[in-house]
Amino acid sequence: MTVSLSELRADNPGVFSDGCPTRTVLDHVMGKWGVLVLVTLSDGTQRWGELRRGISGISEKMLASTLKTLEADGLVQRTAYPEVPPRVEYALTDLGRDLMERMLPLMAWVADHADGMLDRSA
Amino acid sequence: MTVSLSELRADNPGVFSDGCPTRTVLDHVMGKWGVLVLVTLSDGTQRWGELRRGISGISEKMLASTLKTLEADGLVQRTAYPEVPPRVEYALTDLGRDLMERMLPLMAWVADHADGMLDRSA
Repeated sequence: MTVSLSELRADNPGVFSDGCPTRTVLDHVMGKWGVLVLVTLSDGTQRWGELRRGISGISEKMLASTLKTLEADGLVQRTAYPEVPPRVEYALTDLGRDLMERMLPLMAWVADHADGMLDRSA
Repeated sequence: MTVSLSELRADNPGVFSDGCPTRTVLDHVMGKWGVLVLVTLSDGTQRWGELRRGISGISEKMLASTLKTLEADGLVQRTAYPEVPPRVEYALTDLGRDLMERMLPLMAWVADHADGMLDRSA
């Protein structure tokens, strides 16, 4: 482990303060839907309908709101093509790809261990 | 990046299914309070009051419920010492430490970038 909590705290004294920027961004990127949208986009550019079908259980409203938040954070780029019917595509920005380099190893670990963890607590 | 989404999907076909174990564990460990409790414990064993004071804004009820969930998942070990007054300590298990090796680099990245991301979206 190369990053300790003490280092994290020393660099970012507000990391546990209520209302600090880190908490806000954590809410955006580590909330369930934020994670699933980011992981889906890490596979490449996706159209709206592909995202909607790829993430089972997400509502249209929740997908729209999650994409809007991630776009405002600079993690996702929305591109609208003036076609008929209109085509709208979503992709990770460089910042988003940088984030996913850190998030995918964590996601893979959770996916590997989830079954055993829930069996244990059942 | 060594873990791609395709690999994640191939190994864990249910990773995006509604109600799959991965989603449940994601809710536990990547929810805001779960993350903050795990990061705080990655610094070492903590007593109840230390956790309560260390994570500003968490209620007693939310701390108790978060610790119970993480304990059931096998990530946190609770030890009660038969003293007067009673002493209760919380620590990461081996599984919890394994998880944090993946989570801390992500947390450090978020802490480093959060200010810039929110400035951008303000």
